[in-house]
Amino acid sequence: MAKVSVIGAGSWGTALSMLLCGNGHDTVLWSHREEQAEELRRTREHKTKLPGVRLPEEICITSSLKEALEGKDVIVLAVPSVAVRATARKMNPFIRYGQLIVNVAKGIEEHTLTTLTDMIEEEIPNSQACVLSGPSHAEEVSRNLPTTCVVGAKRKETAEYLQNIFMSPAFRVYISPDMLGIELGGALKNVIALAAGTADGLGYGDNTKAALITRGMAEIARLGIAMGARPDTFYGLSGIGDLIVTCASVHSRNRKAGFLMGQGRSMEEAMDEVNMVVEGVFSAKAGRELAEKYKVEMPIIEQVNRVLFEGRTPAEAVSDLMVRDKKIESWDGSWK
Amino acid sequence: MAKVSVIGAGSWGTALSMLLCGNGHDTVLWSHREEQAEELRRTREHKTKLPGVRLPEEICITSSLKEALEGKDVIVLAVPSVAVRATARKMNPFIRYGQLIVNVAKGIEEHTLTTLTDMIEEEIPNSQACVLSGPSHAEEVSRNLPTTCVVGAKRKETAEYLQNIFMSPAFRVYISPDMLGIELGGALKNVIALAAGTADGLGYGDNTKAALITRGMAEIARLGIAMGARPDTFYGLSGIGDLIVTCASVHSRNRKAGFLMGQGRSMEEAMDEVNMVVEGVFSAKAGRELAEKYKVEMPIIEQVNRVLFEGRTPAEAVSDLMVRDKKIESWDGSWK
Repeated sequence: MAKVSVIGAGSWGTALSMLLCGNGHDTVLWSHREEQAEELRRTREHKTKLPGVRLPEEICITSSLKEALEGKDVIVLAVPSVAVRATARKMNPFIRYGQLIVNVAKGIEEHTLTTLTDMIEEEIPNSQACVLSGPSHAEEVSRNLPTTCVVGAKRKETAEYLQNIFMSPAFRVYISPDMLGIELGGALKNVIALAAGTADGLGYGDNTKAALITRGMAEIARLGIAMGARPDTFYGLSGIGDLIVTCASVHSRNRKAGFLMGQGRSMEEAMDEVNMVVEGVFSAKAGRELAEKYKVEMPIIEQVNRVLFEGRTPAEAVSDLMVRDKKIESWDGSWK
Repeated sequence: MAKVSVIGAGSWGTALSMLLCGNGHDTVLWSHREEQAEELRRTREHKTKLPGVRLPEEICITSSLKEALEGKDVIVLAVPSVAVRATARKMNPFIRYGQLIVNVAKGIEEHTLTTLTDMIEEEIPNSQACVLSGPSHAEEVSRNLPTTCVVGAKRKETAEYLQNIFMSPAFRVYISPDMLGIELGGALKNVIALAAGTADGLGYGDNTKAALITRGMAEIARLGIAMGARPDTFYGLSGIGDLIVTCASVHSRNRKAGFLMGQGRSMEEAMDEVNMVVEGVFSAKAGRELAEKYKVEMPIIEQVNRVLFEGRTPAEAVSDLMVRDKKIESWDGSWK
């Protein structure tokens, strides 16, 4: 059994700490607020994020980064994507060569267009960053409902080691060398979830939503292939799988913000009403910058940007998408 | 404008006749029962399948195959897959060289493992068979909600001609040379919809359903690649797109039959209760035969067969899927 810690006591971090503890690992859960750590220690319940789910006594809960990081084999980084750089910087003094850091946040930095694992390795030069992603509502994982994810790592041995760490009878883990594809799919699927939510808000049906999901992932795959990722990753658990879960969920912030915009709210009003960070809004900009940089056509992400930042109405955006040039379906637009 | 006819006045055939008529084509809708044709002519409403939707006066409704077929440029074959061979045989005497037949049914014949377009060309040697598929609930198309489909044809010119015939501001059509991939995805997605419905019936969550959809399409793609289809087709509108719509729909017979089995009914009880042909049950057998013939591992389709025909419980099947050998995620199981 390994010594593991989870940095970030949101719903996903907490659920993963329960999974790891259940697999028999020596598990630490770190919260950035001592007040929260103290409450979790006392009540053994994450009342706001995972109500009704009991945290095992064996999980050690702390707000000390030193305690959470020193001597650990595997460190799961489960903070929001906007907090990854700052958290990694604070972790750096405690990390020793050989410790594995597994990023589970999803996002791409605007302007620098850096993936989160690259960002972690920038801030923690001693680290080996890996990634875990897939269709995995935290609440379902905490209740042991069957879930699948994929671990990406540069070396196969590292991936296999992490597969053994995370895998349980209710949590099946696949492995992949394509970290770029996993991270790109995870970040940009939120933009498509925004678009799918908008279609729901406009009163469109399942046909429209399936079209946005399918063609949305097709344009993300086109970008990913241009950047050197593997096409099949985008049709794997971290790409289309995660997008399906996000678009089906009534809890997804991205889907909900889109829904409100489809009903006529502005981007600012929708963000206020959802009252949380909507990752898709940031990823939409990064997606557009990537499309320009790699000269790839991304019509859905382009229209999401126009609606978010240029005052286009959602109905106009859908209409533009429907009557564009007639196309061949394949990734590269070829016939044979 | 073209002369077109739609053979089969179910919900999909009727909705397509409205689309084609709306595009300005001279449109005939054929029903196999004169009684139904007469009622549709009189009421201009398909009361059982598309209640509340008005059929334009311009659609000519007939039960005469001769009238429906002679002199037509495009013939849409919209009968259930089990009726395709017999209907094609009856159509044969009226078909002249150059008429295009567009199959919109989904299925694969057990034992012969023949695709429906191959079957049509067997029964109508004069014909050129093409295919139209995608995420398209008939009811939504009849209400002009934005929908996307793909047309497959051997020759690019044929595909482009049909793209122009079907495309409207609310119905976007892509084209593809990969008829085999389109038909295979369309037929086998029903088996995965059965599995996804079963997971719902067992009380599992969105994570499990997304896993079945994603890994289900991965195994269908693996089979398709072995058979010579294009991988991207399975991640297109006719593959994952259609599967997403089927699994989201409360109306899908495949999903519903699976749901009942997840709740403890036998296959026969579920079929009785759904009270309609459940295509996935037939396609499950064909899928297993194809997996054996092409020596491809299809664990989900294998487990669906065991549940349907060998008395395995759904919970045992899910458990088997979760704890199988540890895998690499890619289509071919390779690392780089």
